[in-house]
Amino acid sequence: MPSGLRGRVPVGTTVLQAAQRLGVDLESICGGQGKCRKCQVLPQEGEFSKHGIHSRADHLSGLTETELLHQSKNRLKPGRRLGCNARILGDLVVDVPEESQQHKQHIAKAVTAYDIQVQPALHLFTVTLPEPDMHAPMSDKRRLQQALVENYDLPVMDCEMSQLRLLQPALARAGRQITVAVYEFSKIIAVWPGVKTEVFGMAVDLGSTTIAAQLCNLITGEVVATADTMNPQIRFGEDLMSRVSYVMMNEGGDRAMTEVVREAFNQLARRAAKTAGIALDDILDMTVVANPIMHHLFLGIDPTPLGGAPFTLATDQTQVMRAAELGIALHAESRVCTLPCIAGHIGADTAGVILSERPDLAEEYVLLVDVGTNAEIVLGNRHRLLAASSPTGPAFEGAQISAGQRAAIGAIERVRIDPETLEPRFRVIGSELWSDDPEFADKTARIGVSGICGSGIIEVVAEMYLSGVIDADGVIGPVPGRPSERIVQDGRTWSYVLHHSPERELKITQNDVRAIQLAKAALHAGARLLIDHMGIEQVDRIGFAGAFGSHIDVKYAMVLGLIPDCNLDNVGSVGNAAGTGARIALLNFPSRLEIGEILPKVEKIETAIEPKFQQYFIDAMAIPHKTDPYAQLQRSVTLPAAKPKAAKADGDDRKRRSRRRRA
Amino acid sequence: MPSGLRGRVPVGTTVLQAAQRLGVDLESICGGQGKCRKCQVLPQEGEFSKHGIHSRADHLSGLTETELLHQSKNRLKPGRRLGCNARILGDLVVDVPEESQQHKQHIAKAVTAYDIQVQPALHLFTVTLPEPDMHAPMSDKRRLQQALVENYDLPVMDCEMSQLRLLQPALARAGRQITVAVYEFSKIIAVWPGVKTEVFGMAVDLGSTTIAAQLCNLITGEVVATADTMNPQIRFGEDLMSRVSYVMMNEGGDRAMTEVVREAFNQLARRAAKTAGIALDDILDMTVVANPIMHHLFLGIDPTPLGGAPFTLATDQTQVMRAAELGIALHAESRVCTLPCIAGHIGADTAGVILSERPDLAEEYVLLVDVGTNAEIVLGNRHRLLAASSPTGPAFEGAQISAGQRAAIGAIERVRIDPETLEPRFRVIGSELWSDDPEFADKTARIGVSGICGSGIIEVVAEMYLSGVIDADGVIGPVPGRPSERIVQDGRTWSYVLHHSPERELKITQNDVRAIQLAKAALHAGARLLIDHMGIEQVDRIGFAGAFGSHIDVKYAMVLGLIPDCNLDNVGSVGNAAGTGARIALLNFPSRLEIGEILPKVEKIETAIEPKFQQYFIDAMAIPHKTDPYAQLQRSVTLPAAKPKAAKADGDDRKRRSRRRRA
Repeated sequence: MPSGLRGRVPVGTTVLQAAQRLGVDLESICGGQGKCRKCQVLPQEGEFSKHGIHSRADHLSGLTETELLHQSKNRLKPGRRLGCNARILGDLVVDVPEESQQHKQHIAKAVTAYDIQVQPALHLFTVTLPEPDMHAPMSDKRRLQQALVENYDLPVMDCEMSQLRLLQPALARAGRQITVAVYEFSKIIAVWPGVKTEVFGMAVDLGSTTIAAQLCNLITGEVVATADTMNPQIRFGEDLMSRVSYVMMNEGGDRAMTEVVREAFNQLARRAAKTAGIALDDILDMTVVANPIMHHLFLGIDPTPLGGAPFTLATDQTQVMRAAELGIALHAESRVCTLPCIAGHIGADTAGVILSERPDLAEEYVLLVDVGTNAEIVLGNRHRLLAASSPTGPAFEGAQISAGQRAAIGAIERVRIDPETLEPRFRVIGSELWSDDPEFADKTARIGVSGICGSGIIEVVAEMYLSGVIDADGVIGPVPGRPSERIVQDGRTWSYVLHHSPERELKITQNDVRAIQLAKAALHAGARLLIDHMGIEQVDRIGFAGAFGSHIDVKYAMVLGLIPDCNLDNVGSVGNAAGTGARIALLNFPSRLEIGEILPKVEKIETAIEPKFQQYFIDAMAIPHKTDPYAQLQRSVTLPAAKPKAAKADGDDRKRRSRRRRA
Repeated sequence: MPSGLRGRVPVGTTVLQAAQRLGVDLESICGGQGKCRKCQVLPQEGEFSKHGIHSRADHLSGLTETELLHQSKNRLKPGRRLGCNARILGDLVVDVPEESQQHKQHIAKAVTAYDIQVQPALHLFTVTLPEPDMHAPMSDKRRLQQALVENYDLPVMDCEMSQLRLLQPALARAGRQITVAVYEFSKIIAVWPGVKTEVFGMAVDLGSTTIAAQLCNLITGEVVATADTMNPQIRFGEDLMSRVSYVMMNEGGDRAMTEVVREAFNQLARRAAKTAGIALDDILDMTVVANPIMHHLFLGIDPTPLGGAPFTLATDQTQVMRAAELGIALHAESRVCTLPCIAGHIGADTAGVILSERPDLAEEYVLLVDVGTNAEIVLGNRHRLLAASSPTGPAFEGAQISAGQRAAIGAIERVRIDPETLEPRFRVIGSELWSDDPEFADKTARIGVSGICGSGIIEVVAEMYLSGVIDADGVIGPVPGRPSERIVQDGRTWSYVLHHSPERELKITQNDVRAIQLAKAALHAGARLLIDHMGIEQVDRIGFAGAFGSHIDVKYAMVLGLIPDCNLDNVGSVGNAAGTGARIALLNFPSRLEIGEILPKVEKIETAIEPKFQQYFIDAMAIPHKTDPYAQLQRSVTLPAAKPKAAKADGDDRKRRSRRRRA
């Protein structure tokens, strides 16, 4: 925890070794000598059962002399262990505290460049009030109001009580000069003595897996820091439905999850503020996008109704409240604005995507796909918008895949299979070299090859299909006439060995291929359903939002049949559009009102009650989906395995992706 | 504490005896036998010095066997003592916990009957929502909004987050029928399952000495309970200025005072709710009137700027916030509305008086006087309103008077002195008999004669003047030709013995007369200043607000020269007008807006910078004041001492007072 990664290791393995093997983000500088104390962990010893985790003291080796020495010098807090000293003796859960995490760059939710007109929800005004006059007695609040009218033509009716308390002390401190922050041009939410020129806001993309914050200067619009962290709710359940189940099964489970996610917000805010060198107190606004269940849990609303039909949201509107009300410690009067959810399965993250991509302004038909645990899909143009959610599951994020992992340094992201020899070559995040490069082993020694991330999975399955390792039904097996040691019997089915090193063997199993087939079938069926509803033949543009979208090679997505027909030139990543939407809402207040007007017009398509969805889903299980014959694909797709210019194509593709697509 | 009463007792006196001697409100049923455990106190042992109270363990006798027995049976909490067992050995402060107070009826702030049009700030609406429909997905909040529009034509934009959390559980509990409370027809602040027909509000008159609450049914307007308590801030200083001094001298002193007064609000709310048999949760609104310093301290605003010129208020506007923000535990979203203060010395209590009496609607010139620690004075009619505050000090409330006490059972409230024999007779609160009645001693045995309250002081000084015991300059001395044992030498001056009993001798000293002279001169000078400013000769009507006003006999007020000339028929009590104003604001929302419009038009007269004020003050020291010759008074005033029908006159007077005066 909090990565949620789990696995089996031989008895006696150190926690640090296990962490490295599983790809868990645990810091270590001294190489396991017990010197650097970076690998501190908090074991939650226990035994797994249906009823949760029971405490068992003997699932971890006892304190070593090294640890006792560190404890005696207060360098190891009680309850903590050194990951390199503690040896695993049985089932257990291990927490990696914030400071022991390596904070590898989560490439996942990087900031997407976007030109936003800065018009924040709050503005700063500096005024100097006249000295009080006993012959014309007037409260300082009224004098302040008069000064705002005289200097800025701004009639402000109200002032938060917590700030009214600061008014007279502030006036006394700086010769009656003060700066106030006025929210929505109507209410004073902050008072400072003298001149104040900078305030900040935080845009947060709250995902089931990752929470990513962008700290922005509300005056200049600049992103001054970013921070992300794993969603600590993972300990209650890896995917959305298992978290809702946790709530249903555990009295107070929703409160526990609400608490941990808010604490994660506090951590993110502290980290971002520290990075930017500002005080937490200077953060006065926050916007949040999230899927419906994350959204409700963040707001402290029991998400149980979202766990079953009819999937009724408590609210599908923008909600504004004080951060303090949610237990988030920023400025005392900092606001939090959650963007609206669209339907039970279509969240405020999709509202963020719409705000970022504005399909409602487009002339052509735009298909926007945000792949997370569900795929949230929007289709339409300025005349009509449809939205649906398709149950892809987390396979595209590397979950449920035997060698899968999230997109982080060391994860395989690109794969090619030689159609003749069936030998693979790959690239990992953090290195530009392909694995068949003579320098690869040396250059990646420090990084290692830890697993395969979403884009890698797409590519390997597509390459397996293109090279004949799997057939159109997705079954792995030996390729007639091309014997290969890579294809190995694995119980009743076959696997493809992508990589083997002394530490680990990375295989693509039949189950992995099935998981990808199910996921891509769901995605394709959802998109096809919307195209059907819209009554069109083909979409004009496809945008992939989010981490998945920014890493996959769309050609492979097309080979696998993830998405419906479209000119490949018009298919690409739209960046972290949900996060960008949150930032737009943060920096551009009118857009919060706009999204509130757009969303009620979006038609929600509920895949679960659409009879056609099941048929489309089954049709789409094959590779590629049955409606797009392979022949046609081969015409439109430049298959990279057949050409040596794959690297260049990649570069072009990256350029295209970074191009802004706003109309 | 919390009465603030202090005195000297012989070493060895029990705390209970001392309490009884000082008139402190300490319960005892068993007569000091250590059986009833009602007289429990919390000693704050200590030694007084300039720097506060230092702890000293030996100022109270040790625990007795009786107390140890009660402790062992958990009938006496640690730290507590039995008042009848603990003996005083040195200086100390003793707290009387809430449950050990007798809760004698504080006649002070009774409810004044008043016909209020019930139009509260919040309204209840019951709706039944349709079942959710997957074919037309919509959040339950939006469904609720639709139902409010359909059923009540009420577009409600917003819902408090804490209540949004309750929406779906409430819908699930009662077949999708719910009741919501809508604040100002715009925001949902409460959600209940099923039908809810009653909600409550509390109107609070927060005085320096007493805090009085009226709990009202917000639907019917009925007062369902009242509760009052001493202002616990008394421990920080008896009067306003000493409390401000405390803040200036003690870091965090304002926070300490804010805390205790809010806790008193919590106590009052709990008591009132218990009396009415309702849940605290059912209280959703509160209005508060208070003088500026109490007002600021209640809101958590440092009142230091109000302690010296130019006496600048932080706010002179109506403030609305959540009760929870102030640490007051009612319904989670209960609002608190403080009425606006007028100027540094003229508080929201005067705003309450104006709201109750509406001088701004009157044709004739109305003088309204609210006597507390200061006298707040309003003069005017529908064309013009003036307001001022005069520094009367607390003498009229019985403070600074040697035998003075607050208006409570056992206090002398009526006094007559026989002009021939100079023998007094009196009546005490709680008995209808005069002290010269043969049955008086028997009937008042249980009540006792504990001291003299404000109205009694006015009467005894006026009667002393009328009988010649004091001269026009206020000097006490033997009356030539009418020798009396009542007039006794007391150091360099004389005193008048009003009553002596085995426990106590009640005297009126020269200092007492001086204190009353100063107070009445301040009051008179303030009123005269306003009359001057208004440019009129005489006022048409005088209304006394508050406890003082409802107990004094206006004839005596006129004899003493408290108030300017006016036809006595048009002088009377207007009841607890400040408290009534709070109740009006609670029950009639539009009046909150009205008072916000009236107040900025009120002209504030600052007595401290008016050169004439000092002259008027000196002029008014004599009895009666120099502009109202005694002869004229004798014509207009039926002197009760000269007539046997005093009792009847009293009755008439009471009737007149209870007549409502609203135009």
